Amino acid sequence: MGLIEAFTVLFSWFLLASAERSTYIVHMDKSLTPKAFSSHHYCAVMSKDELGALKKSPGFLSAYPDKIVTPDTTHTYKFLSLNTATGIWPASEYGKDVIIGIIDSGVWPESPSFKDDGMTEIPARWKGICQAGEGFNSSLCNKKLIGARYFSKGVREANPGDTITMDSARDDSGHGTHVASTAAGNYVDGVSFFGYAPGTARGVAPRARLAAYKVIWRQGNLESDFLAGIDQAVADGVDILSISLSNGRTNLHEDPIAIAAFGATEKGILVSTSAGNRGPNFATLIKGIPWAVVVASGTVDRWFAGTITLGNGLSITGWSLFPARTTVRNLALTYNETLSACNSTELLSEAPEGGIIICNQSDVTTDFYFLWQDLLNSNIRAAIIINEVTSIHQSASFPYPGVVITPRDVKDVVNYASKSADPRASIEFQQTILGTKLIAAPALAESSSRGPARSYPGILKPDIMAPGVLILAAYDPYANAARINNNIFLASDYALLSGTSMACPHISGIAAHPDWSPAAIRSAMMTTANPLDNTQKPIKDTGNNNNDAPPLEMGEGKLIQIVLLIQKFRRTVTNVGDGAVTYKVKVQKTGDSTITVFPETLVFRKKYDKQSYSVTIRYKTQGPFDYGSITWIEENGKHTVRSPFTVTLKPYD
Amino acid sequence: MGLIEAFTVLFSWFLLASAERSTYIVHMDKSLTPKAFSSHHYCAVMSKDELGALKKSPGFLSAYPDKIVTPDTTHTYKFLSLNTATGIWPASEYGKDVIIGIIDSGVWPESPSFKDDGMTEIPARWKGICQAGEGFNSSLCNKKLIGARYFSKGVREANPGDTITMDSARDDSGHGTHVASTAAGNYVDGVSFFGYAPGTARGVAPRARLAAYKVIWRQGNLESDFLAGIDQAVADGVDILSISLSNGRTNLHEDPIAIAAFGATEKGILVSTSAGNRGPNFATLIKGIPWAVVVASGTVDRWFAGTITLGNGLSITGWSLFPARTTVRNLALTYNETLSACNSTELLSEAPEGGIIICNQSDVTTDFYFLWQDLLNSNIRAAIIINEVTSIHQSASFPYPGVVITPRDVKDVVNYASKSADPRASIEFQQTILGTKLIAAPALAESSSRGPARSYPGILKPDIMAPGVLILAAYDPYANAARINNNIFLASDYALLSGTSMACPHISGIAAHPDWSPAAIRSAMMTTANPLDNTQKPIKDTGNNNNDAPPLEMGEGKLIQIVLLIQKFRRTVTNVGDGAVTYKVKVQKTGDSTITVFPETLVFRKKYDKQSYSVTIRYKTQGPFDYGSITWIEENGKHTVRSPFTVTLKPYD
Repeated sequence: MGLIEAFTVLFSWFLLASAERSTYIVHMDKSLTPKAFSSHHYCAVMSKDELGALKKSPGFLSAYPDKIVTPDTTHTYKFLSLNTATGIWPASEYGKDVIIGIIDSGVWPESPSFKDDGMTEIPARWKGICQAGEGFNSSLCNKKLIGARYFSKGVREANPGDTITMDSARDDSGHGTHVASTAAGNYVDGVSFFGYAPGTARGVAPRARLAAYKVIWRQGNLESDFLAGIDQAVADGVDILSISLSNGRTNLHEDPIAIAAFGATEKGILVSTSAGNRGPNFATLIKGIPWAVVVASGTVDRWFAGTITLGNGLSITGWSLFPARTTVRNLALTYNETLSACNSTELLSEAPEGGIIICNQSDVTTDFYFLWQDLLNSNIRAAIIINEVTSIHQSASFPYPGVVITPRDVKDVVNYASKSADPRASIEFQQTILGTKLIAAPALAESSSRGPARSYPGILKPDIMAPGVLILAAYDPYANAARINNNIFLASDYALLSGTSMACPHISGIAAHPDWSPAAIRSAMMTTANPLDNTQKPIKDTGNNNNDAPPLEMGEGKLIQIVLLIQKFRRTVTNVGDGAVTYKVKVQKTGDSTITVFPETLVFRKKYDKQSYSVTIRYKTQGPFDYGSITWIEENGKHTVRSPFTVTLKPYD
Repeated sequence: MGLIEAFTVLFSWFLLASAERSTYIVHMDKSLTPKAFSSHHYCAVMSKDELGALKKSPGFLSAYPDKIVTPDTTHTYKFLSLNTATGIWPASEYGKDVIIGIIDSGVWPESPSFKDDGMTEIPARWKGICQAGEGFNSSLCNKKLIGARYFSKGVREANPGDTITMDSARDDSGHGTHVASTAAGNYVDGVSFFGYAPGTARGVAPRARLAAYKVIWRQGNLESDFLAGIDQAVADGVDILSISLSNGRTNLHEDPIAIAAFGATEKGILVSTSAGNRGPNFATLIKGIPWAVVVASGTVDRWFAGTITLGNGLSITGWSLFPARTTVRNLALTYNETLSACNSTELLSEAPEGGIIICNQSDVTTDFYFLWQDLLNSNIRAAIIINEVTSIHQSASFPYPGVVITPRDVKDVVNYASKSADPRASIEFQQTILGTKLIAAPALAESSSRGPARSYPGILKPDIMAPGVLILAAYDPYANAARINNNIFLASDYALLSGTSMACPHISGIAAHPDWSPAAIRSAMMTTANPLDNTQKPIKDTGNNNNDAPPLEMGEGKLIQIVLLIQKFRRTVTNVGDGAVTYKVKVQKTGDSTITVFPETLVFRKKYDKQSYSVTIRYKTQGPFDYGSITWIEENGKHTVRSPFTVTLKPYD
């Protein structure tokens, strides 16, 4: 434990910044350093010569240059849903008295999501503060947002002479506010994103506390600030650390996120972190931190719609997120094969002014950037866009009044538009369809980073999938949340964002269990995760032609890796149900590999009783992957405990 | 009375429509027509030969071709405010049990302004119906909207073979809904126009009833339909007719509005009608109907704002109605004399991308059509526009995120933008400032038609001014209420409209007095009107360089006209206060004319006591106009009764 403990003892050597000097993160063995170095600092600005001298100091472990951290938000998607009926979520009492520390871009404290209605007194164990700063006074915290601090030392040293924008815990990007309110925002009625997703907003753990640690700055995001934030959060007494940031480190022993997360986990703090948005390729996940829950991003069973009603009464529901209450009523509808290319302003100027045009974009595989440009420059009031690509369904950018319909739906529209003497249509925007099966959900988000992890291939990551596509949560009310035209940016108190950044705080909120240990929470989350989507079929991967998504982990288990053709391992499980119970095993798999579980029945005599079993895998598959799961099913009961696994010989790139 | 009565007996001769035939409005003397013609019809389709034969019929009075009626809505302004402290308005009990008939484009019955919360049972005297039609079933009326009918016979005959759009009482333009809810809409909380003018909407007489008569159609607006609507409203039992439409007739005896209004007035119905929007020139008012209240349009003391905050902390409030929550925060601010012309896309492309530009439009006297185009095509995020022209302040069209500031406010902005090393600014849109003195209000709207009236120069019109500029009221939720870019039209449940159409229903609502006669109501409204604006100065005319606005009437009085150098006339007034009271006269005037009032004191012994006085005017002025007023002031009391007048030799064109 000595060496590992030393990972959390960090040392900073302060010198005046100079052109030849760089910021290093230095690790010292606490037990060997003089008392003068016992305080925790993380950031050292020094020359190469000074670094050389430091390396000779007693207790020196390692030093590496400060690096940039990036928020894990994009407009895409990934896999493994949570069971709302059983498991940890309903058992957590909505996070009552659990403190979630958000390491991010700060917080917009006036958001109604951070009101403390219904919250009890702050636990006496809390040691955090409400730090005053630019545009942020110390009275802005309350019984929901119990702490706020900011860490800008690293960014100041990296940008000598520059003024740090919004030098306080106030969020001026919206990212941290979104993440915090997703994890533990209070109940807020009547919110929406420009009319879409209307309803009551609430975090996953609406009774948990929040403490915001701002480490993200317009002038840059430095690991040193990030480390200072985590260290302070641990000292303040958070129960959960929610980290929707990545730093791209491939070596765990040089990764401050991994090191700080280890220290936090040791103190009983659960660390939830985003998988990153480098998908959809195999082994695009960098962050293989064994002791953190690494979260992938998935789609939600919600459809944002524009409803087209043709003059003949036929109605078609398409996809739209146009962010204004536009009116398209009984306008002339044009379908013309040449014009339907819709690929230049000149072409579109030939279409009847003030009407609706049908644009065939079925061969467009990225976004509609140029289409939007041409349509915005035209005199056409709305477009019906034929496109199969699902990536439009994960982006909140929709600057023109269009509705996307699939080639399956287009026949009736084109028939009517071609054959009617006076074809007309109306479109109703700002519609939201919940529980839809128009798209399979959850499905793995295209951009969500795929395991195995580069930093530690010995463990299969990510651990779990949570909603991360077009998630509605609180936002900086002055940040850009949507766009119309090229140059008109719109703000909203609640914004739809996509990315593993949005998935991570779902897990932080779910993990807000007042009694269980981080390991118990992780195990409970992962073994009760539901492998089926809303059509009761295996969860799909939208980044890989909607094939079945590969499972990303097996319990806390090890990855069956490339060199092991026969692998046997042993698991121990604890009964957290009340009283005696018996579980029987069920094994499901693809391919020719054989999976043997022994024993096949586990008998628990009372609560907290432990039982062990072994799993033997003999690899025989011809394809690149075999998938499967080991599920323990309660006899005469409703509980199931599931561990998915992957068997593969494919190397990562 | 025989001849006058005959004006209200109209006759229709129905034949199949043919190409050679036209629709005529035919007037017959009821006492001389055979019984077969005793029912009321208004529209006759006939050939010239048939018309010749009709002219020989007993009882024939006149026949003239059907003509087009237009709604009096525009984006401009006029003069004479109402006193909310004393006079008819507070005395009317918010219109309790008064029925207002709206002759217009129908009604959107589902608008919350037409909910009947707080309304008592419908009076037994009401004989109207809730007529079913396209998209309108007979259950849509209630205790607030007690009647709805539609009249499309004329438009059908004028457009043989065409389908009439929305052939029912349902409003598909928004005009009728706006007018109806202005007169007598119920209380509705939380309404706004894209964030502007937020608050509780209410009509002037929120306890009055409404009956909608649709006579306006997409295929055309015919006098014959219009007449049918008025006739039915009278038969149904309305107390007030609100007519925000004009037909451009200059001869009263050929003007169905004048004729129908006379018949209605005879039955004790007050007719309130819009002056028209042909201002700002002298004698642009056509509708000189002596027996109707003809209403001019004025501004409101409300400012729709964008607030600019410069990087140095200075804050400037400008004018904006950009209809979306756009965010302009801490962006680079550019002032450059060449670029500030902002008059081409090429020029604007030289300005820094993504910033704010200062556009000098101080010489632009109309609207900003081309400026908006160029800015929308640019990569510039917002514009600060220097302009003195006040007409922008009366239009709800604002398709780009701009803020208009006057040349007075520009110095600090230009200084900062020119001299700061890194000039920056933020703009907050969607702000509303009530009770502002930024503009004098009420002021006469530029477009409001000026008297004297062409149809009857012998009477000074309009009678009174009411709010008619950027009035917030209920709207067709699918109609175009605002625009962004060229081709994106936005809808709203409540819209800001301008014009005498909006002023007229204010008077209809004010006139909703359960006990007084139409003549008493007109006299009370006009003599208690306040001639001062919010700066306690005479009301200004925005259409004439903000000079004092000329008074438009003198009680029920006659116009001092061009050929009369000395004019004497007599007035009789009735005391509607409780008990004995004494009034003394005060005469105010401009120019050298002399005004003599005799006697100078009027002593009333009890309520409803009548007294007479004479006014003698000797014209001596050198200028085109003299203005003045005769005010009777209560001794030891708060009541004043004011009659403004105009003395002029200027002929109308």
